Amino acid sequence: MKVKITQTNLNKALSLMARVASARAPLPILANILFKATENKLELSATNLEVAITNITKSKIDDIGEVTVPAKLLSDFVAQLPKDEIIELSFEGNKLSVQAGSYSSHIQGMSAEDFPALPKIKEGKKIILNKVVLKDALQKTMLAASHDETRPVLGGIYLHSADGKLNIAATDGYRLAEYTIDGIEETFSAIIPLPSFQDTLKIMQEGSEAEIEVLFDEEQFGVVAGETELVSRLIEGQYPEYKQLIPEKSDIEFTLDRESLLTASKLAGLFARESGGSITIKVSESDNLVTVSSVASQVGDNSSDIQAEVTGSGSVVLNVRYLTDALNCFESSKINFRFSGSISPCILTDPENSNYQHVVMPLKS
Amino acid sequence: MKVKITQTNLNKALSLMARVASARAPLPILANILFKATENKLELSATNLEVAITNITKSKIDDIGEVTVPAKLLSDFVAQLPKDEIIELSFEGNKLSVQAGSYSSHIQGMSAEDFPALPKIKEGKKIILNKVVLKDALQKTMLAASHDETRPVLGGIYLHSADGKLNIAATDGYRLAEYTIDGIEETFSAIIPLPSFQDTLKIMQEGSEAEIEVLFDEEQFGVVAGETELVSRLIEGQYPEYKQLIPEKSDIEFTLDRESLLTASKLAGLFARESGGSITIKVSESDNLVTVSSVASQVGDNSSDIQAEVTGSGSVVLNVRYLTDALNCFESSKINFRFSGSISPCILTDPENSNYQHVVMPLKS
Repeated sequence: MKVKITQTNLNKALSLMARVASARAPLPILANILFKATENKLELSATNLEVAITNITKSKIDDIGEVTVPAKLLSDFVAQLPKDEIIELSFEGNKLSVQAGSYSSHIQGMSAEDFPALPKIKEGKKIILNKVVLKDALQKTMLAASHDETRPVLGGIYLHSADGKLNIAATDGYRLAEYTIDGIEETFSAIIPLPSFQDTLKIMQEGSEAEIEVLFDEEQFGVVAGETELVSRLIEGQYPEYKQLIPEKSDIEFTLDRESLLTASKLAGLFARESGGSITIKVSESDNLVTVSSVASQVGDNSSDIQAEVTGSGSVVLNVRYLTDALNCFESSKINFRFSGSISPCILTDPENSNYQHVVMPLKS
Repeated sequence: MKVKITQTNLNKALSLMARVASARAPLPILANILFKATENKLELSATNLEVAITNITKSKIDDIGEVTVPAKLLSDFVAQLPKDEIIELSFEGNKLSVQAGSYSSHIQGMSAEDFPALPKIKEGKKIILNKVVLKDALQKTMLAASHDETRPVLGGIYLHSADGKLNIAATDGYRLAEYTIDGIEETFSAIIPLPSFQDTLKIMQEGSEAEIEVLFDEEQFGVVAGETELVSRLIEGQYPEYKQLIPEKSDIEFTLDRESLLTASKLAGLFARESGGSITIKVSESDNLVTVSSVASQVGDNSSDIQAEVTGSGSVVLNVRYLTDALNCFESSKINFRFSGSISPCILTDPENSNYQHVVMPLKS
């Protein structure tokens, strides 16, 4: 193998694979990146047996061939090289030679024959999504996925489509986020591991393509973003019927300035450390006021009043982190908040856009 | 006490004291900030018994008085408030009430009577330094101070003036940094604890004053930067005669592009992990070349050639971190590097400016 490639292109391709080609992998070769130079393209791949990423990058092929090289060492080396260098990669045996101007190194690799076969999506379903929308959906749902390993399905993001809508949802039992994308004809459902979606976000950050292809077969899902492809296994199992948790209507409802509620929540959170983060939201219809408060007996107390459009009166105790996380998932100036009493779920939405809802379960007060 | 103050001013004053008023202090009250409102000014102070910081901040005093309040909770609270709020502080008993628009809280404080007396500089020596120069000197020397607690004097920064020059120096025995400031008439020497200089840097970041007053008495030093004062104890003991370690002349010397040497060192460092960071610098007068290299037997090897103006030939093995730290202490495009063989100190200077030198001791090769 002998190829020439710019520092910028090689650096970008290597950074895409950094998380997947991890030294913590069960087989040493999985910490390596597979380089495959054919007549007309250079393909880099990495896999941790759960997810595989492949990127085709611009280069000049002088000689075909393949080899695997430690991802971290090569990435660190290339990242340090000057941005305008042309890098020449060649190998003899399994040793990769890297030449860039007067900088030179040899890196011990392993035979490409020992690299595991990369998964491919068989005939399956395919949808096309706008990249900006998909990024938005992932960023606003991933945080609600569970990190509790005893319930693996909740560690995934649930995609299910029906009636022309794709719902993307995640919940850890304490909170739930659901994003809806219209205009999807295919019908399917799949639970995607959270790390695979983090990698999906990463590969979408590079490249100028406006649309992303998402593919599914029975056991895998794939993403094609420009010259980069990702294939991941799905999580097996049945996702909970989460729609049942979200009441259609609530008795108490208010709409107010999102930033004001966020500031009031953070201030209350400072006095909520000894109570495990619990803060109280009190809604008064007669005053059109929402009051956010907390008390720490030894330390002090705190209370903030916010003017709001209010229907109904009542109060609820929430975990401050779940509430601030939820508020940060919106960019809107106003937020709509509804609940039915101290033990019912609280539903947050943007009053002008119904494509996203965030549900926070109350704490026992 | 009753005062009105802008969020911006209170936030700035509190952030100056954050490190000093630490919850890890031996007495609970040292985690508090002392508020002292007199007829015409509001003074905030914090101390950890080693260093004390006092700041006079703009405010409107409606009622005089004093109280101490937990630094962290109040700082966090004020930092979250909107930037344009006017904050009203008042207290009853030892409870501070904080009102800012519709945001309100009460914070349990402790009596100002229990706060330790703040140290003052007695009659002593005084010098005036340009703020930009002092910041530069501290940033370029502090990194060479020792973190080894068995030799307390090396944990300080050594200031000594004679013959119209102030030398600011630090060494941990493996490297040494010395910065020289001209035009200082006072004669003195003092060893200043590293954390006090970190606080000094912090108080210099705020404020628009161009000059800094530095004061010394037998046991303490002080810094006056605009409306902020810092007083710190000195480290007792005798600083080593470090000048003896720096040879006047060296047999081998080269001048080259600083960025190129930095890049070559970082690249070599990647292959130096198993050898404890040791990289080799080889100087060849006949080729006018400097070669930076490293070898990691199982992993690979690396070598970079840099064109240089060279006098003499030879090689030396250095710790890559000490070398890159040293190179990062300069902003110049060129660097001058001299040494006399594999066991002699390496001296780095800017060829166009002699006010700073950085010495790195070689590793046994």
